[in-house]
Amino acid sequence: MTGPCEISFQPIGRRISVPVGTTIYDAARECGVELTSACGGEGRCGLCRVEPVSGDVSEADAAELAVVGAQADDGLRLACRVHIRGEVAVRIPETSMLSGPRLQVAGVTVPVELDPVVVAYQIHMAKATLTDPRADLDRILDALSEQHQVTVTGAHSDVIRVIGDSLRDNDWSVTVFVREDHVVGLAAPGATPLGLAVDLGTTKIAAHLLDLTTGENLGASGVPNPQIVYGEDVISRLEHAYRNPEGGDRLANVVREAINGVAHDLIEMAGRRPNELVDACIVGNTAMVHLLLGYPIKQLIKAPFIGSSARPIDVAAAGIGLKAAPGALVHVPGAIGGFVGADHVAMILASGIGLAERTILGIDIGTNTEIVLSKAGAGHLTATSCASGPAFEGAHIIDGMRAAAGAIERVVITDVGVEYKTIGEVPPIGLCGSGIVDAVAELHRHGIVNPRGRFEKAHPRVTMGENGAQFVLAGGDVSGSGRDVVITQHDVNEIQLAKGAIHAGVEILLEVTETPPDDIDAVIIAGAFGSFLTIDSAIDIGLIPRLPRAGYRQVGNAAVVGAIRMLVSAAERQRAEDILDDTGYEELTVQPVFGRRFAMGMLLPDLQRNRDRGRTR
Amino acid sequence: MTGPCEISFQPIGRRISVPVGTTIYDAARECGVELTSACGGEGRCGLCRVEPVSGDVSEADAAELAVVGAQADDGLRLACRVHIRGEVAVRIPETSMLSGPRLQVAGVTVPVELDPVVVAYQIHMAKATLTDPRADLDRILDALSEQHQVTVTGAHSDVIRVIGDSLRDNDWSVTVFVREDHVVGLAAPGATPLGLAVDLGTTKIAAHLLDLTTGENLGASGVPNPQIVYGEDVISRLEHAYRNPEGGDRLANVVREAINGVAHDLIEMAGRRPNELVDACIVGNTAMVHLLLGYPIKQLIKAPFIGSSARPIDVAAAGIGLKAAPGALVHVPGAIGGFVGADHVAMILASGIGLAERTILGIDIGTNTEIVLSKAGAGHLTATSCASGPAFEGAHIIDGMRAAAGAIERVVITDVGVEYKTIGEVPPIGLCGSGIVDAVAELHRHGIVNPRGRFEKAHPRVTMGENGAQFVLAGGDVSGSGRDVVITQHDVNEIQLAKGAIHAGVEILLEVTETPPDDIDAVIIAGAFGSFLTIDSAIDIGLIPRLPRAGYRQVGNAAVVGAIRMLVSAAERQRAEDILDDTGYEELTVQPVFGRRFAMGMLLPDLQRNRDRGRTR
Repeated sequence: MTGPCEISFQPIGRRISVPVGTTIYDAARECGVELTSACGGEGRCGLCRVEPVSGDVSEADAAELAVVGAQADDGLRLACRVHIRGEVAVRIPETSMLSGPRLQVAGVTVPVELDPVVVAYQIHMAKATLTDPRADLDRILDALSEQHQVTVTGAHSDVIRVIGDSLRDNDWSVTVFVREDHVVGLAAPGATPLGLAVDLGTTKIAAHLLDLTTGENLGASGVPNPQIVYGEDVISRLEHAYRNPEGGDRLANVVREAINGVAHDLIEMAGRRPNELVDACIVGNTAMVHLLLGYPIKQLIKAPFIGSSARPIDVAAAGIGLKAAPGALVHVPGAIGGFVGADHVAMILASGIGLAERTILGIDIGTNTEIVLSKAGAGHLTATSCASGPAFEGAHIIDGMRAAAGAIERVVITDVGVEYKTIGEVPPIGLCGSGIVDAVAELHRHGIVNPRGRFEKAHPRVTMGENGAQFVLAGGDVSGSGRDVVITQHDVNEIQLAKGAIHAGVEILLEVTETPPDDIDAVIIAGAFGSFLTIDSAIDIGLIPRLPRAGYRQVGNAAVVGAIRMLVSAAERQRAEDILDDTGYEELTVQPVFGRRFAMGMLLPDLQRNRDRGRTR
Repeated sequence: MTGPCEISFQPIGRRISVPVGTTIYDAARECGVELTSACGGEGRCGLCRVEPVSGDVSEADAAELAVVGAQADDGLRLACRVHIRGEVAVRIPETSMLSGPRLQVAGVTVPVELDPVVVAYQIHMAKATLTDPRADLDRILDALSEQHQVTVTGAHSDVIRVIGDSLRDNDWSVTVFVREDHVVGLAAPGATPLGLAVDLGTTKIAAHLLDLTTGENLGASGVPNPQIVYGEDVISRLEHAYRNPEGGDRLANVVREAINGVAHDLIEMAGRRPNELVDACIVGNTAMVHLLLGYPIKQLIKAPFIGSSARPIDVAAAGIGLKAAPGALVHVPGAIGGFVGADHVAMILASGIGLAERTILGIDIGTNTEIVLSKAGAGHLTATSCASGPAFEGAHIIDGMRAAAGAIERVVITDVGVEYKTIGEVPPIGLCGSGIVDAVAELHRHGIVNPRGRFEKAHPRVTMGENGAQFVLAGGDVSGSGRDVVITQHDVNEIQLAKGAIHAGVEILLEVTETPPDDIDAVIIAGAFGSFLTIDSAIDIGLIPRLPRAGYRQVGNAAVVGAIRMLVSAAERQRAEDILDDTGYEELTVQPVFGRRFAMGMLLPDLQRNRDRGRTR
């Protein structure tokens, strides 16, 4: 077959015709079935697992089998790696489905009932006449009451400004979008309300467009956070905003434009209209939220680092430059404390940490790392954050780079050389975070670096480069740049600093909550970096703790899944507020033991002792 | 005595030292005691009655005695006409006091309990530290809960933008303004919330500034509506807004700037600050409200004349250019229907028409005249409006002018000449509305004009001028312009058209409600023009009906008093909504009898028959 062929998705029963050779992932997106994915269909995150149950599809290669692991035996494949060759039926496991009546994060299942804040009503009205001269809004409110038995008392003034044309252009039959007791927008008859879920990351903005009536995920998109030109990390951006007149406005404007751009690409791709966008949920860390909402940040950049507000808020979409229904609001959940922001609340919500009756440690590693502990029986959560720095995003690392084509993301040092894998499988030009962690772990395992993090200069594979002691991962003869790709003494030290902070955070959190490490049932690792990390490497360098009983789960961008949940369900929005109420914040830097724990945490663990004590899976 | 002397006001016990010669009215304003007044202290409206109980004051002249009438025997004076000559104690009757725990409209007393929508709390907080790093807003909400046992859940994002500086500038002790469950503003410790009440008239903007904690009226001011350069009447302004690109924005902007200017003059005069202004209530007719709020008006200028909204609304103060506390809202009450707008609702509220158990006819005469009937026992009100045109504001009248210095406002034709009174007692330069009505009534009484409104050209006092048949009220030898001030055939016809419309409105309203004229207990005449009108003249030309049993009351600008009531009391705001629910609207132009009633109404009544039937007081 070469022409179009039909693919059907079960159990939801959706079908679409696509050309031969299309991936299941792309076909799913094309018909609005959104599969979980953290890597955007690059075969790396392992979240988009599906089961082709009938029909002809491409075979799995070694890379795919490595990612799928044991589930390959159950017939599971990565949707983004499977090319269809004819009529195909595909089963989507619940854990791989982002849209529909249940929302999933890989490995953690929490059902969400559709319960959106904005509801659509179809109304039909008699034309205004001299004998029935009710004002336009009053006519709408009367129709809502008569035709739908709902009591609506008013509308935002920006909505009132568009009512006249909307009623007359649509011949007195319209869709009315209602939020609580107010009209927030109008659209052509038959329209359904749209919602936008956004994870506003320091590096990347991820957005999903949802139909709030069906819960269907209409599309997802990600763009770099354009603030990056004003500073790679949060602190340098806050400094830019503080030091430059208009700096805060500039940072706010570029990110607002980016969000609006992503939203409207998604709306256009879905064949919908901006006036149907009636609600949004944006999560981000404390600094990102402050910059987005135009909150002052001068208190945030110096001790005691006080935010303006940690409360949930609904702001006018128009107020942050989002083109939407005139009365649309944007929900920004509250923050836990310090830099533990709305994104972490969303992660806790999506991962189910807050609901679990087990003892769970959640870690979201980034420039700032947030750590949360849910202790079985405690009835509350405890969170903290530490400044782990941008080393895991490749910054401050000699050959570091972001996770992009040409970045080494996996490293194995063999007795005779180095095996590595690059993103896009092109010649290496640098190292991204997961590659750096792998590299340090391998250097440590091979005794090339000692437990204090020093290169053993006598080791035959250590060379001296322009930055001192180094280890060559890829020579200039094979690299994409013609220069050696190396890891240096400086780089190892940067990683030690970063992991030392996280180590101290975890240790102190366990101490203040009096939680023995043996009690921990699960470690949930959230965030993009965390989902690409090799867990064994992270444990072997002491970035994440080796815990005797714990299972480790990488849940990808759980923050955006949390945002989706809050978007489609008022109850989830309430649950996020409950998480705020139930989560205490511990400030690490005021702990007397912090310095000592930090210093100890910089050491590389004794691997033998560790291996004896624990296991990973 | 020549130096400053003390004046005390009872029963409220306020005192102030002012120079000898100051009027009681000015002294009262100086110390923040606001007396009722419709004429702004010009001795014409008779509302600012007070009783000097001890001390030396100027004697009443004939003009003052004429305005005060029988109450002069009780020692009452017009505060604006009494100059103090030494220490003086003055009693302010309840009916003359606008501020304080009770609000009054002349002759109609309805007590108002202070029950403002925004409340101020004083809070004191511990400074933020590393060990107590709560965000600023959270710290405020905690303090409100701990120190005042009030649950407040958030703040508008514009408020959050100012919290940081406010807390630190005031050393962590601030006044917090709370509306329902939200913080709407912050101020220095000890501040009290301010409110602004505005009657947005087609011709004039009247504003009062109130302290919402004490109910004290801190000042009043009036400015011309600057939209007047874009059209004297409502229709020509709506046409301007419709025909010109940006026309609507221009009309909105000039009036918003004017309101903001008046507000800030009042705030400055009161020694207060804009961030203490936390609430406002603006009333106006349907067209004024549409232009102020930027509602589209293209449906409003052609049949069937449909407004965008007749619902009450609270809009952000910043959204209409009013500099105030960042979370301040402006309340604009709902409208009854057609052009019967929020100002008429405010008038009904202030005059007590809606509460009365008697049958009351309320008439607010202007370019558009609103008429409301409260029928004893009916349980609801009925309102209508008619396009009476701008003749009563002096427009379309050959020598017409607004009520300003040099305008003839009273006319008596004697056997030998003409007696008249001008505003400001300067030589006449034209006629304002009340003068025109007096003049037509006098021409009619003297048979100079016949019942069809035609000049009797054979009458010896009728002359021919450049505009045809005319009557000279003041010759060029005594006028301010050197030209005759005249009333012409054209002018009489204009007044006939205007009064014909009102006559038809009243007749049809009584007919559709099946109300015999004999049942009417009272006629309330509201509005600036109505308060300067000579009732007998208005009845004699048939502008207002001669009713056998009715008392006639001129209540001045009751709309602004209604706005004040809604500003200081949430219960009154609710009562205004009840009035909306309880008031039906009758569209006159769809009544088959409208044309005939209009035509009949243009005739001048038979005075002898009228005199026999009724009485006025």
